[in-house]
Amino acid sequence: MPAHEIRPLEWRGDARTGALYLLDQRILPGREEWVCLRSVEEVARAISDMTVRGAPAIGLTAAYGVVLAVRGGVPAAEARTILARTRPTAVNLIWALDRMVAHGSPEPQGLLELARSLHEEDVAGNRRMAETGARRIGSGMGVLTHCNAGALATGGVGTALGVIAAAHQQGKRIHVYVDETRPRLQGARLTAWELARLGVPHTLICDGAAASLMARGKIQLCVTGADRIAANGDTANKIGTYSVAVNARHHGVAFHVAAPFSTFDLSIPDGSRIPIEERDPSEVTAWGTGRTSPRETTVFNPAFDVTPAPLIRSIFTERGEVEPVDAAAIARLARSAS
Amino acid sequence: MPAHEIRPLEWRGDARTGALYLLDQRILPGREEWVCLRSVEEVARAISDMTVRGAPAIGLTAAYGVVLAVRGGVPAAEARTILARTRPTAVNLIWALDRMVAHGSPEPQGLLELARSLHEEDVAGNRRMAETGARRIGSGMGVLTHCNAGALATGGVGTALGVIAAAHQQGKRIHVYVDETRPRLQGARLTAWELARLGVPHTLICDGAAASLMARGKIQLCVTGADRIAANGDTANKIGTYSVAVNARHHGVAFHVAAPFSTFDLSIPDGSRIPIEERDPSEVTAWGTGRTSPRETTVFNPAFDVTPAPLIRSIFTERGEVEPVDAAAIARLARSAS
Repeated sequence: MPAHEIRPLEWRGDARTGALYLLDQRILPGREEWVCLRSVEEVARAISDMTVRGAPAIGLTAAYGVVLAVRGGVPAAEARTILARTRPTAVNLIWALDRMVAHGSPEPQGLLELARSLHEEDVAGNRRMAETGARRIGSGMGVLTHCNAGALATGGVGTALGVIAAAHQQGKRIHVYVDETRPRLQGARLTAWELARLGVPHTLICDGAAASLMARGKIQLCVTGADRIAANGDTANKIGTYSVAVNARHHGVAFHVAAPFSTFDLSIPDGSRIPIEERDPSEVTAWGTGRTSPRETTVFNPAFDVTPAPLIRSIFTERGEVEPVDAAAIARLARSAS
Repeated sequence: MPAHEIRPLEWRGDARTGALYLLDQRILPGREEWVCLRSVEEVARAISDMTVRGAPAIGLTAAYGVVLAVRGGVPAAEARTILARTRPTAVNLIWALDRMVAHGSPEPQGLLELARSLHEEDVAGNRRMAETGARRIGSGMGVLTHCNAGALATGGVGTALGVIAAAHQQGKRIHVYVDETRPRLQGARLTAWELARLGVPHTLICDGAAASLMARGKIQLCVTGADRIAANGDTANKIGTYSVAVNARHHGVAFHVAAPFSTFDLSIPDGSRIPIEERDPSEVTAWGTGRTSPRETTVFNPAFDVTPAPLIRSIFTERGEVEPVDAAAIARLARSAS
């Protein structure tokens, strides 16, 4: 698949007989397979088991899930309940479900049109966000990213990786350092795959090597996506992000977040209120069919961590850049749309 | 194997017909298999491919390797050259080889006796180091460790893990958080295995989750081993250690190192002069038989990083505790033995 065609989800066909297709992100980069979903239960499972992942992509998948629910006789409100509990941290999921439920249409056709417009909004928003963020990236910079916040995580060119791709396309000479991102290796499997297709020079590292590269002066800027941003700017993102931010601060490296406005949760004051999903220990203790740790060993496997706002230089959104990252600036951003 | 019998290497038999046996650490904890080495080339390969690892254990393995070399007609000086280049960072390797070469004996018997005495020194030194370090661990503490600095990494009870085991055996209620330690998972595979056998309560985490646990107040002390300590206290240890130290400083958590005096390299002034081994990219890009990242992706896979002395609260050694960690204190430690 050419770089410009990387997309994690698409609705194929009309509202009556069509279906939602997901690129199976669990088996990338080894194989490129699409799975076809025709019921809300299938959509819920695909989100839980991470066939699709990335906060914006999860939101759009859930939106199409409501179309499938209503077409199958499941009321939109019930679909919301089923889908909302699949991944507790990413707030874009709730945001998209609320938009779909508020539409109130009992007709799949109207709901499909709305889901498609949310999808198009995301595509356009990604592009604006990428332009905003790319201004911060200068030629010659080393840029670190964690997890995957690219086309695979969104409807469009991506959030953090959209910013990076835009800088590259502007002709800036950049080198991207990709945290492999344990336990599910979204950096190694997905971000490296996207960057290879985009032709962006990049180097894969273990998460623990990022600090060492900062100490060697190889990294000038960090940018990641986000799963939920509290009203004060505290940002939940893939586990390990906070460690990157602390190390960036220690080394005087700028740490940025790229996220659409749908990632902000103005209903909670700070990051301590963001629910952090804990996933199955087997993600850490096993690989393929082999165990990598003793059976007696217990595991703590939080999927996300929270980076406090003071560690974040700015947040790139489709409505512009939030800087400084604090409650007043975020409130101004919210007003800019209403 | 019972906990008190965990040992990574042993010479079986006499000098003339005996051999060096290594517990194959590449396949733990799945299988416990011993490999038998009868030549210096076999010993060199076992160190390079990490059948044995951990700075003190590598040193002792190399010492026995000199016995095998001389018995096979390879002069000790040539054995030193062959073995010294197997792993460039751990200085205990050079230290042990120099002790063996200085002995000057052309007889395997005399060399075996010296190797055995180095081994016994390490056992006794581990015990004293453990007692010294355990004083810093209070009941109720959460203790983080990175990589494996236990019995499997040494001749005795271990360095960092010896300290932790001693605190546990003193009846202190502690909980150990074990960084899995990518790319080779020595934490998940080896440290968790040792702690399970010792009955020490522990939780395995991905390296990226350590910062999050510190922010939640779960960790009061960090302790790791070391592969080489410069004259000013800058400490090379497994990649990811430096990130732990930076995060510990950010959260006001004490970061300690445990290492025998043979880990100090007084010939180099600071950590910038410590050679950092880079290992094969396949440690990061593949798992078992499966690739986890695209073929186009390049990898940076340093085996170690350097933690600057100011981030280290103290160093536990068999000669007592070095605090503060600076050139003057280390020079005093060196004089204490001469």
